Amino acid sequence: MASLRRKIHEILEPGEQASTWERWVDALVIVLILVSVAVVVLESMPEMVAWDAALKVAEAGIVYFFTLEYLLRLWTAPEARRYGAGWRGRLRYACSTMALIDLAAIVPFYLDPLAAGNAVVFRLLRIFRLIRVLKLGRYHDSFSMLIRVVHLRRAELVASLVLVLCLVVIASTMIYAVEHDAQPKAFASIPASLWWGIVTMTTVGYGDVYPVTAAGRVIAGISVLLSVGLFALPAGLLASGFSEELDRRRARKQEGAKERCCPHCGKPIEEEEL
Amino acid sequence: MASLRRKIHEILEPGEQASTWERWVDALVIVLILVSVAVVVLESMPEMVAWDAALKVAEAGIVYFFTLEYLLRLWTAPEARRYGAGWRGRLRYACSTMALIDLAAIVPFYLDPLAAGNAVVFRLLRIFRLIRVLKLGRYHDSFSMLIRVVHLRRAELVASLVLVLCLVVIASTMIYAVEHDAQPKAFASIPASLWWGIVTMTTVGYGDVYPVTAAGRVIAGISVLLSVGLFALPAGLLASGFSEELDRRRARKQEGAKERCCPHCGKPIEEEEL
Amino acid sequence: MASLRRKIHEILEPGEQASTWERWVDALVIVLILVSVAVVVLESMPEMVAWDAALKVAEAGIVYFFTLEYLLRLWTAPEARRYGAGWRGRLRYACSTMALIDLAAIVPFYLDPLAAGNAVVFRLLRIFRLIRVLKLGRYHDSFSMLIRVVHLRRAELVASLVLVLCLVVIASTMIYAVEHDAQPKAFASIPASLWWGIVTMTTVGYGDVYPVTAAGRVIAGISVLLSVGLFALPAGLLASGFSEELDRRRARKQEGAKERCCPHCGKPIEEEEL
Amino acid sequence: MASLRRKIHEILEPGEQASTWERWVDALVIVLILVSVAVVVLESMPEMVAWDAALKVAEAGIVYFFTLEYLLRLWTAPEARRYGAGWRGRLRYACSTMALIDLAAIVPFYLDPLAAGNAVVFRLLRIFRLIRVLKLGRYHDSFSMLIRVVHLRRAELVASLVLVLCLVVIASTMIYAVEHDAQPKAFASIPASLWWGIVTMTTVGYGDVYPVTAAGRVIAGISVLLSVGLFALPAGLLASGFSEELDRRRARKQEGAKERCCPHCGKPIEEEEL
Repeated sequence: MASLRRKIHEILEPGEQASTWERWVDALVIVLILVSVAVVVLESMPEMVAWDAALKVAEAGIVYFFTLEYLLRLWTAPEARRYGAGWRGRLRYACSTMALIDLAAIVPFYLDPLAAGNAVVFRLLRIFRLIRVLKLGRYHDSFSMLIRVVHLRRAELVASLVLVLCLVVIASTMIYAVEHDAQPKAFASIPASLWWGIVTMTTVGYGDVYPVTAAGRVIAGISVLLSVGLFALPAGLLASGFSEELDRRRARKQEGAKERCCPHCGKPIEEEEL
Repeated sequence: MASLRRKIHEILEPGEQASTWERWVDALVIVLILVSVAVVVLESMPEMVAWDAALKVAEAGIVYFFTLEYLLRLWTAPEARRYGAGWRGRLRYACSTMALIDLAAIVPFYLDPLAAGNAVVFRLLRIFRLIRVLKLGRYHDSFSMLIRVVHLRRAELVASLVLVLCLVVIASTMIYAVEHDAQPKAFASIPASLWWGIVTMTTVGYGDVYPVTAAGRVIAGISVLLSVGLFALPAGLLASGFSEELDRRRARKQEGAKERCCPHCGKPIEEEEL
Repeated sequence: MASLRRKIHEILEPGEQASTWERWVDALVIVLILVSVAVVVLESMPEMVAWDAALKVAEAGIVYFFTLEYLLRLWTAPEARRYGAGWRGRLRYACSTMALIDLAAIVPFYLDPLAAGNAVVFRLLRIFRLIRVLKLGRYHDSFSMLIRVVHLRRAELVASLVLVLCLVVIASTMIYAVEHDAQPKAFASIPASLWWGIVTMTTVGYGDVYPVTAAGRVIAGISVLLSVGLFALPAGLLASGFSEELDRRRARKQEGAKERCCPHCGKPIEEEEL
Repeated sequence: MASLRRKIHEILEPGEQASTWERWVDALVIVLILVSVAVVVLESMPEMVAWDAALKVAEAGIVYFFTLEYLLRLWTAPEARRYGAGWRGRLRYACSTMALIDLAAIVPFYLDPLAAGNAVVFRLLRIFRLIRVLKLGRYHDSFSMLIRVVHLRRAELVASLVLVLCLVVIASTMIYAVEHDAQPKAFASIPASLWWGIVTMTTVGYGDVYPVTAAGRVIAGISVLLSVGLFALPAGLLASGFSEELDRRRARKQEGAKERCCPHCGKPIEEEEL
């Protein structure tokens, strides 16, 4: 029993030397995630009404598979040292980010009967079903690097966001003040202006609302130039963050490196001696 | 009295070892700033007319609180060494950026009676009331890093801005020359073209004005490609700025760790002495 | 014969010390690529019907030239050491990226008769004819640097792309849920919402579909701010990638400059020996 | 005479220790450049017809001043060592970038009579008059840094541009193939599609043309994601370029630094000894 648990754990959480067979299980789960996202997307199309039954079967099958996967992961959690043994280890695992995402990927399906007849609740549940796309995060090591760099610079990234929001609030209020008389409908209130502000400052620019007075255009021009400058902040922050993280990794590698020896006399050589 | 002043000063300007109680005061002020911004925004909505009295009371309460905060900060300013003692210290504090922002956050409220009946002055005062959003700057250490890096690269950032403006002016004039005959209304004059220029070069692209002639489209295509390249300049500048600033911080930390000594006489040497 | 083959090889694949004559051949090929792209573009214009015969002749001439170039490159491939001698060397060359692009640049022309009368197939072939624009890649050393850096960061770039796609899928589904009732035509299904999602998250913002309800605008605002932050990831990744690649180049240069010797026995040591 | 020439040269080309008086001349020229740009812009406004005479006088006055400045710079050019003495020095100066910009800033004014009655030539001359905005480049040291970094990475920047153009050409042709039947007017030919391509790939997105078929939207979505990734290349290139340039400057500074001495015993200290 214990050896079976270990074997299943190794299949579900392969280390760096994953066997071909373990890689195939990974690939299968990735494909099932993508298929299940596609099923949710297709179900919403009026053209797919004829295929509704097939899609529902596929959806159910995938959710049952993910449920099995979740239960197996929970059962085998104590095999990983960091969670500890027994039910306490399982509870600790169940509270980890990835386990919560796994749970969120299956729960909405079982809550479907609750939505009976209520279209809004039904659609909200559909959204939560899509959370399963985040399950992909487990299968790509590079996410950990991205997340670590974002975490490293989180304070400055939040500060940039606050600056952008301040700019949006101030620019929108100014535009509201000068454009309200010219376009009382488009700039009916400051919240309506905030929609213009966010669409303009992020350079989306749908063109549903835009200033028409000279003063409004001058204010819009200056604030959009400022906002383009502000949006250069996260790029700069992340660039220096990636450099720092890579320097750290290299330093860690060098520390762990085995002693270097002269290939001629066999004596160990310090880096500074060369 | 002096010990009360010190206590209030410590609550208002907590150092790095802020107590839980001091953190709660900080959090309260942040919430009040956000609430007061929300109040100004909601007041502008025609749907909120029924709540107008309540919003006015909330606004008044918050401004009275901020006024008290401003006066307490002014009174306790001499506790901070850098401003110096007595009224000269208070005056010096009152001229600091944060104190001026605090003042700008409360003054518009007291000027409201002046706007009696004049809608434009009234709306302008409302804008200035929103300046209080900048009070948030005090509560986030990361702003200081962002500001220092922008300051470090200010000359190059201004130069990039001048380049962008030159491109906008030249591209807009060329578009005016070739599109004026085809769209005499949209490109009525160079200032009107400048609106097209700024909206296009920042890639907002509302779609209210765009070239329709072949020559105009070629000019627009080339200049928008150039402008996208130019907007890569601030991102690059800030990236190298953040790297430099972080190197400095690390160097300063390392210096503070091991004292430097003269190799001849063995006495410790300050960095400035060399 | 062998010396002729070497001469042609040198003309087609000049090393770092290219003669003026070899540079002229390069320039001729670049011009022909650009002309042939222009020919494909012009052929599609209804105004150019009168010139159709001339364009067809130009097209045929250029394709014959490229065919000759392809055959000569194939014949002289064994001159390059890395492919090896004889037909095995030629086969290995034929499977290289650049050789496949060269083949793709000429094949569509010879398949034209197959499209006889079928407008869609005809237009698809025209697209493939444009692949020849990629032949330019051979003539610019800097592409190799760009490609190497993208390759160096490919895992993180793919991870960023997956994050962007997750955001697009989740934001589009949420918008579909809240906007479907207000705009049943524009947000008819999740796939239709995905079009809104991709156009908004990349900040293109055509303005053909946009949310009109308050909830939809809040969701759109938050997700577009997140996506602008996500799009800062590739810029940051590539910035640190270029720095790393340049450091490597400099290190390789310095290594080649001064021989390293063992400090004990004085003998020179190769980097790989340590 | 020679001493007068030197004095004028010092006023026009102040070194690093510019006197207050020399700075005022600089500021005057910057103001005149901005005023003359404003004059050209205002002249194009139909509302300014009443002020036409005044604007023409201002324009003439400024051009006469710039002409005097150009002639004085030409006369005093031999004072700068790098151009050499006599007329050969003047000729060499006249061929420098800044001198050509100065010339281009005044020539269009004197060519105005040639445009007599021809509106198109008249407007083209007006564009060239705006070139004087580039005269600002002389007055900001930071431009030299931006230009040097762009020059340092010019090969890679050009390669990025070629990649973007390849993507635009291929995406536009594909969209033309799939959208031509659905929107024969908007996607009338490949050149018309190229307009869509450039507006979409740079994320301007006016909304005057956009795909409506499912295939077209898939192609557009994929290519716009790719293009956003490609536009991260210049930001990354410039970021690493600025870091490199700053490292160089620091290295140059350290090399030129004066010997450091121990403040206690006065003996010189090598950096490595500390």
